[in-house]
Amino acid sequence: MKPLGPVPAGYDAIDGVLAVGGRPVTYWAEQAGSTPLFLYSIAHVRKRVADLRAAMPERLALHYAVKANPYPPLLSLMTQLVDGFDIASGGELEIVRQAGIAPNTVSFAGPGKRDAELEAAIRAGVTLNLESEGEAARALAIGERTGVIPRLAIRINPDFDLKGSGMKMGGGAKPFGIDADRVPALVRQLAGSGVEWRGFHIFAGSQALDAEAIAETQAQALDLAARLTGESGVPLPHCNLGGGLGIPYFPGDKPVDLALVGERLAERFEHLPDALRDTAFCIELGRYLVGEAGVYLARIVDRKVSHGEVFLITDGGLHHQLAASGNFGTVVRRNYPSAIATRFDAPAEEEASIVGCLCTPLDKLADKGGFPRADVGDLVAVFCAGAYGASASPASFLGQGPAVEMLV
Amino acid sequence: MKPLGPVPAGYDAIDGVLAVGGRPVTYWAEQAGSTPLFLYSIAHVRKRVADLRAAMPERLALHYAVKANPYPPLLSLMTQLVDGFDIASGGELEIVRQAGIAPNTVSFAGPGKRDAELEAAIRAGVTLNLESEGEAARALAIGERTGVIPRLAIRINPDFDLKGSGMKMGGGAKPFGIDADRVPALVRQLAGSGVEWRGFHIFAGSQALDAEAIAETQAQALDLAARLTGESGVPLPHCNLGGGLGIPYFPGDKPVDLALVGERLAERFEHLPDALRDTAFCIELGRYLVGEAGVYLARIVDRKVSHGEVFLITDGGLHHQLAASGNFGTVVRRNYPSAIATRFDAPAEEEASIVGCLCTPLDKLADKGGFPRADVGDLVAVFCAGAYGASASPASFLGQGPAVEMLV
Repeated sequence: MKPLGPVPAGYDAIDGVLAVGGRPVTYWAEQAGSTPLFLYSIAHVRKRVADLRAAMPERLALHYAVKANPYPPLLSLMTQLVDGFDIASGGELEIVRQAGIAPNTVSFAGPGKRDAELEAAIRAGVTLNLESEGEAARALAIGERTGVIPRLAIRINPDFDLKGSGMKMGGGAKPFGIDADRVPALVRQLAGSGVEWRGFHIFAGSQALDAEAIAETQAQALDLAARLTGESGVPLPHCNLGGGLGIPYFPGDKPVDLALVGERLAERFEHLPDALRDTAFCIELGRYLVGEAGVYLARIVDRKVSHGEVFLITDGGLHHQLAASGNFGTVVRRNYPSAIATRFDAPAEEEASIVGCLCTPLDKLADKGGFPRADVGDLVAVFCAGAYGASASPASFLGQGPAVEMLV
Repeated sequence: MKPLGPVPAGYDAIDGVLAVGGRPVTYWAEQAGSTPLFLYSIAHVRKRVADLRAAMPERLALHYAVKANPYPPLLSLMTQLVDGFDIASGGELEIVRQAGIAPNTVSFAGPGKRDAELEAAIRAGVTLNLESEGEAARALAIGERTGVIPRLAIRINPDFDLKGSGMKMGGGAKPFGIDADRVPALVRQLAGSGVEWRGFHIFAGSQALDAEAIAETQAQALDLAARLTGESGVPLPHCNLGGGLGIPYFPGDKPVDLALVGERLAERFEHLPDALRDTAFCIELGRYLVGEAGVYLARIVDRKVSHGEVFLITDGGLHHQLAASGNFGTVVRRNYPSAIATRFDAPAEEEASIVGCLCTPLDKLADKGGFPRADVGDLVAVFCAGAYGASASPASFLGQGPAVEMLV
């Protein structure tokens, strides 16, 4: 039997059935009219943001990274909870506009911004996190041509990375941001060119669980921001310290010690160097805010024994939950947290693999896990489905089409 | 410098620019009005099918696996070239119907067929490749309820796998098909229940390049079909020998020796056991027919040097070509064949990485390859993009939306 990832806190059973948003998932499946189904829990998101606010220094603003989950009702909820939004494409700009989000709370990072995207962002008043000198030149040209003053920040490729992070985004040659040593010259050029100078974006990695490493990276980001501000001689209005806070996906993973991260950052904020005394700070989180709030539900359509092994074959699969199948950013496949949702409080009785309906051996949601005995009609739940699930999966693969999404 | 996969045969330059369908790709990009862009070459598909027909015994029919690429104009082309179609979902059933494909040439395999999909297929007259006894019972019940005689075949989980295949789909416990030893009993049951008995589907693996291994697997499939037919005592009208023929993606990969596969199969066909004398045979190919006919094109929007490394940042990425990024079914990332399409006959001058526009380090199309010097505005080509490209990638990830597709 292979271990399953840890079920996130906050999920209980009602009459034996997994509950989300105060009701059994069978209720939501009936409401949706079909499976598979993503449920995003309002209460879970609210609690996560409240816990984060309580742990972090008040001075630290909180941004939501739209790419984690752009489902419109979830974005609307976020407008009540966070201070700003980070987008990664012209498509996401359109999504935040349709959600009625104030453009002056939005920043746009991404290494391959087209001219049309730069222009749309500048016209909307969104802050651009510039990824290269070439992009800076294009943004300035668009500003001149359109007569709109661009709001520009610089994304820095830092000299350090976030230790233990699932994705390193700093510390060496990278397609993201501008190498730190070239930043001061660009700051001076921008500041002298009549644009609205917005500051720095420093993103060293994501999906880390080690609070010490996160705190250390934030400290390094502050040091770097101070040094580059000193070198450029231009005051720093704003500094985005990036993200980095991960969620437990796999067996043995433990949640981030939020209190430690908050205390360390508060200490640093109390002893900021002069260069950063008037700077506004934020962190930018996606997965950490919404990942554990999401549950993916699929229905068992066949129960099959092959050479003595049990396969629970569902109507879902990697076309909705690619990362859970181990085919997105992971080298060794490990099991996400999963469960038989309709027998949520029953003990494990057998070893079974939960697979999707796609005609490929890649389509595995849980490999040889321990589950209560399940049958056709039962619902399975894959947890940690709130971020990089529906929007990061190949929904049209094999003609299956997207899953229903609900904010509950 | 890291090696690139081999550019498939049949691609040349016109005035220095990669040509597809007799015209430079710059022409097609202009026609499309935007990049990124998938081009599927009619001539390439036609030649591939002709080569295959020439090599294989006449008795072997050729089916196209729609899941490899369901682009409607490509499907229409396929109706002129192949003898049947294999689908993997109710969605694909809808696609082949809209393409005007005769349902009696279509078979439907897939481990998680819902009742609604079974019913739609039965009503349409499509052959169902049954994946379990449970599915058989459901299909029979639907036949009775609707008064339509189901056309039923059995997908066998063979006792062998295809050696060296990228995806093994036999040889042990699998969610696909029915374990071989349970097949004769089900054949007898089906034959006695008044359905139209269609035969066997034996799929042992895909994406193999070793002709000896493919020939050996086909021989094993014939032996298995003969043995199970003998044991069931029911004549075998049809036998789908599966696919298996792969295409070279990575450095060192060589094309399948088609002549050898064809000769071996012809020998076997000449000495078929009595049980298979009147059986019709087909193979079912997707990737092999269309994979090398497709080219993915993206435009360079930034050229960036970070810590001495060159990054060519494009408007494309893993949201269109997930497999080329190494995030779909591969453990160790290796480079797909790629090139600077607008400098296709120029020699390599520098080491560069081609990356996508997504804000994630996963979004890499070519890692430290040798390329002619390219700049903003140049087009890059990723080859082997005709199968499991557009439809198998997370097109809405980061709000980027799908690429244009063209059959040329």
